[in-house]
Amino acid sequence: MTIHQFSPSVYYNTIGSHEPVLKIQDGDTVETTSIDYSGMDRNGEVIARRPNPMSGPFYVEGAEPGDVLALHLEHIYPNRSWGYTSNVLASNVLDPEFVSQMPKSETIRWDIDLAQGTVQLADPSPALSNLKLPLSPFMGCFGVAPADGQAISTSTSGPYGGNMDYRGFVAGVTVYFPVFAKGALLHVGDGHAIQGDGEIVGTGIEVSLDIRFTVNVLKGKSIFWPRGESSSHIFTVGNARPLDQAVQHATTEMVRWLHAEYGLSMIEASNLLGQCVEYDLGNIFDPAYTMVCKLKKGILA
Amino acid sequence: MTIHQFSPSVYYNTIGSHEPVLKIQDGDTVETTSIDYSGMDRNGEVIARRPNPMSGPFYVEGAEPGDVLALHLEHIYPNRSWGYTSNVLASNVLDPEFVSQMPKSETIRWDIDLAQGTVQLADPSPALSNLKLPLSPFMGCFGVAPADGQAISTSTSGPYGGNMDYRGFVAGVTVYFPVFAKGALLHVGDGHAIQGDGEIVGTGIEVSLDIRFTVNVLKGKSIFWPRGESSSHIFTVGNARPLDQAVQHATTEMVRWLHAEYGLSMIEASNLLGQCVEYDLGNIFDPAYTMVCKLKKGILA
Amino acid sequence: MTIHQFSPSVYYNTIGSHEPVLKIQDGDTVETTSIDYSGMDRNGEVIARRPNPMSGPFYVEGAEPGDVLALHLEHIYPNRSWGYTSNVLASNVLDPEFVSQMPKSETIRWDIDLAQGTVQLADPSPALSNLKLPLSPFMGCFGVAPADGQAISTSTSGPYGGNMDYRGFVAGVTVYFPVFAKGALLHVGDGHAIQGDGEIVGTGIEVSLDIRFTVNVLKGKSIFWPRGESSSHIFTVGNARPLDQAVQHATTEMVRWLHAEYGLSMIEASNLLGQCVEYDLGNIFDPAYTMVCKLKKGILA
Amino acid sequence: MTIHQFSPSVYYNTIGSHEPVLKIQDGDTVETTSIDYSGMDRNGEVIARRPNPMSGPFYVEGAEPGDVLALHLEHIYPNRSWGYTSNVLASNVLDPEFVSQMPKSETIRWDIDLAQGTVQLADPSPALSNLKLPLSPFMGCFGVAPADGQAISTSTSGPYGGNMDYRGFVAGVTVYFPVFAKGALLHVGDGHAIQGDGEIVGTGIEVSLDIRFTVNVLKGKSIFWPRGESSSHIFTVGNARPLDQAVQHATTEMVRWLHAEYGLSMIEASNLLGQCVEYDLGNIFDPAYTMVCKLKKGILA
Repeated sequence: MTIHQFSPSVYYNTIGSHEPVLKIQDGDTVETTSIDYSGMDRNGEVIARRPNPMSGPFYVEGAEPGDVLALHLEHIYPNRSWGYTSNVLASNVLDPEFVSQMPKSETIRWDIDLAQGTVQLADPSPALSNLKLPLSPFMGCFGVAPADGQAISTSTSGPYGGNMDYRGFVAGVTVYFPVFAKGALLHVGDGHAIQGDGEIVGTGIEVSLDIRFTVNVLKGKSIFWPRGESSSHIFTVGNARPLDQAVQHATTEMVRWLHAEYGLSMIEASNLLGQCVEYDLGNIFDPAYTMVCKLKKGILA
Repeated sequence: MTIHQFSPSVYYNTIGSHEPVLKIQDGDTVETTSIDYSGMDRNGEVIARRPNPMSGPFYVEGAEPGDVLALHLEHIYPNRSWGYTSNVLASNVLDPEFVSQMPKSETIRWDIDLAQGTVQLADPSPALSNLKLPLSPFMGCFGVAPADGQAISTSTSGPYGGNMDYRGFVAGVTVYFPVFAKGALLHVGDGHAIQGDGEIVGTGIEVSLDIRFTVNVLKGKSIFWPRGESSSHIFTVGNARPLDQAVQHATTEMVRWLHAEYGLSMIEASNLLGQCVEYDLGNIFDPAYTMVCKLKKGILA
Repeated sequence: MTIHQFSPSVYYNTIGSHEPVLKIQDGDTVETTSIDYSGMDRNGEVIARRPNPMSGPFYVEGAEPGDVLALHLEHIYPNRSWGYTSNVLASNVLDPEFVSQMPKSETIRWDIDLAQGTVQLADPSPALSNLKLPLSPFMGCFGVAPADGQAISTSTSGPYGGNMDYRGFVAGVTVYFPVFAKGALLHVGDGHAIQGDGEIVGTGIEVSLDIRFTVNVLKGKSIFWPRGESSSHIFTVGNARPLDQAVQHATTEMVRWLHAEYGLSMIEASNLLGQCVEYDLGNIFDPAYTMVCKLKKGILA
Repeated sequence: MTIHQFSPSVYYNTIGSHEPVLKIQDGDTVETTSIDYSGMDRNGEVIARRPNPMSGPFYVEGAEPGDVLALHLEHIYPNRSWGYTSNVLASNVLDPEFVSQMPKSETIRWDIDLAQGTVQLADPSPALSNLKLPLSPFMGCFGVAPADGQAISTSTSGPYGGNMDYRGFVAGVTVYFPVFAKGALLHVGDGHAIQGDGEIVGTGIEVSLDIRFTVNVLKGKSIFWPRGESSSHIFTVGNARPLDQAVQHATTEMVRWLHAEYGLSMIEASNLLGQCVEYDLGNIFDPAYTMVCKLKKGILA
């Protein structure tokens, strides 16, 4: 169980079967960094191009197509004291006939208090001058190389993960990905200091990150979409448009999980989910939207 | 401020400009009951036909088209010790190619412990024999007469409310409806003892209810979609298909609210919502789906 | 087989179980008129309110819930020499981020040459001064009373017909509706002199009409969505959002038709439709969109 | 203007920036072949894997990102006397609650009469024994390397083309693609002997093809989605889910075209499209659906 300190020097704008930057073993831990959506590092220098330049890929020895990669998110924290957002709601989350009432979007700056763990608008209007929000940093875009040798833009997402922009991917969570390529080829990045549900202005508070994660290769499991586990919930992730289809992917994956690993019949899974399921809206901005299907662990016990 | 005890004898399967069953004043309280989705009363007798027979309409003196009706949900509680659900996930929440793996749906019974405030499957399989869930009773279908003299089935929903099947409509919440018809013509019913997000088996635990509510007529406000207020949040409701459009309705309504009543500019509203908004999935089963856009009251303070 | 000359004096803005304006027999013919979308008659006088005031309902003796009403469209022609349209594409048919490039929509006038059978812009810009289009008049909104005593706005559509805005509903076509109410209660109106696919400016060229139709009651058939027959095709109509669901309704209805009346197995129907089906986009503007599934009669022979 | 005879020996299952198999000049013609969806060549031998192995990429000298590649489809014809289809409608084109009435899909064979230009089921049931359909061969999947160095599965489509499965891409048509990569990198394949609208069984009649095309590089034009031109129409192509979004892409692209190259204002374009536009449903099966927005050339004259 090695701990690797890895400082990226190459960044990809696609998630795909690129040359690995580091080979690690099952069980290893990586401490690394990511730069932000538009390629700015901790010093505000643009060292790669948008969108969402990725750190990695990390090659996990022993991971074969058909396996599952467990990714334990151990530490995700901004490594600079500022971030930025768009300042106008995305056109696609508003009624079409209301869109023209919105001004043109600009990029604005937020100050991050790393010690206190809060963010504030750098230049707030009076109405928002008291707005101080707690940091809740997560990765917006990360995943493994997709099937069939594809290399897919970090603006979108799919069964392999990608730009899901789900604010539940915080430190403490374990994420499971289906492995499509030898070595899994894990990519990480796109830090958000905080974000509302849906990423409805098209950004979270975009930041560069310090990241620590540990990987495990799980043999003999078959999953179709990303799954996850927090202290309180198990969850599944569907990425698609419209949201309806994202719900279908996530719900179907949850049924598979309850059936295969918890031994529930289709009817038992239905009875449980029908009265207990929760859904989170990951993003409704990117080319593929994200819905998350959740179940409290307490209920499964 | 009168308290009316009203015992329904007629039930409508549409929400519309029907003959009022009771005329009440602005500020009055009504204590009444509702029967369940398939017309069964507290004794299990079928006294009206499905879907969702409504108690009402209640005519609120002084409510005119263009006003807002504030509906304070004060008490919503099952008045019998059992309910029922479908026991198979709805086809439309599963991947189309997975649908045929599901058995045919049947209606099953749940026992309600009214004193303890819990529900359990009446005839559980071993795997679910320990499943005991807390009651969280709410109304699935309620609203005011829609625009243009329409009478719309209680299976669906729209700007006037209707079959939203959102589990957030519990006692303690105030709901605001746009008034489309003289007297507002409030309909209530479709009790659920508990339900997961989305009503994904097509039912909550369907029950007859005791209901107490108080109404207020608000003049000089203009709203387009139902709004609400709980102890923790303000929220707006969009009803449409696909979910994407429900999100558009709810988000646009929230922007209008923040702009008109909290004095925020479009950019201020965007900054606030972008990093703080929450969404709930009301239902993804009925002809119109429901998404709820929420904002913590603490953030608005 | 009586021919009724009927001159409307009352107009409804909902399709529902209203008091019939005329009772007719199975096989009867009606010659009547309709006024336009905004209630203007042949003289340009506003005699009813928008949207889409309907002529009718016509009560067809012998039509019972569960039957089918066959409506033979025999004559549909403008009865005045002008119409009007909106002049800007609807926001919902454009990419959300392109919407704000469109000017505000206005109502503009078109001249109709009733003898020659053509339309032209009344006040064309130079670039469109030679645009002369052939009349292709049809009814945008018509149908029978919907299920459960509903009365639904003429702005939308459903299994009962309604505001489908499909340009294929021209004279010569027979339309089949499921009957939901005693007497069927047929409503007609919303003339369009011509329209492109989808009604993408939100209107056709709106006109008042002369209409002649004949009705037949078909017993012992069960249909779920409107069906139709032209000289060249049989077709089925799905009304819903998104278009995907409208396609599902129309396709499923076509499969039912091929199975029940042409004796094809599910596989035979699939083989035929897979390589021969055609789809028309009825409207992508109204609350419910319309897709039409078509099959050439020659192929069925 | 060289005519290249090119016999493929490598096939890609993604459309991307792969090593070119041939470099050609602006104005050159290529005569080549493609194998079918599942990698079978003219002899029925499987020489590549599914889905949709592509012939190419062809590097067009002088094509730079930001240019347009004009692809003249000159000859597209099956080079063997049989094809195959799935024999059951895809789950996603049916009402979810109807899906389970369909049997499991199998692959079936069709006979192609290359001389007569017709197709018939190889082993028809009596009801379909007289079904003889005219060949109308086209390419289901073709396009140029997508943006940002992506390599995207030939199961889906986007602004770069891909698996659009639109039956309008027949010989005689010119298709215009935005160029994203140096040399454009054209891929061709996925022959269909014939197909209905929408590819609703998930296949056309899948065949290997003889193909001849000529390319031209157009400088100084900017397009966002594929465009095309047949003898009768100009058209634009939108690829997305749901169909609604595909309509938005295609319609917006048509407005851009009418504005930039025909000099129409937004209002003139709206007036023309509103009353004259036609839409074709390309596919409603693949991960991205395809809608085509068409305008008769005669109207533009």
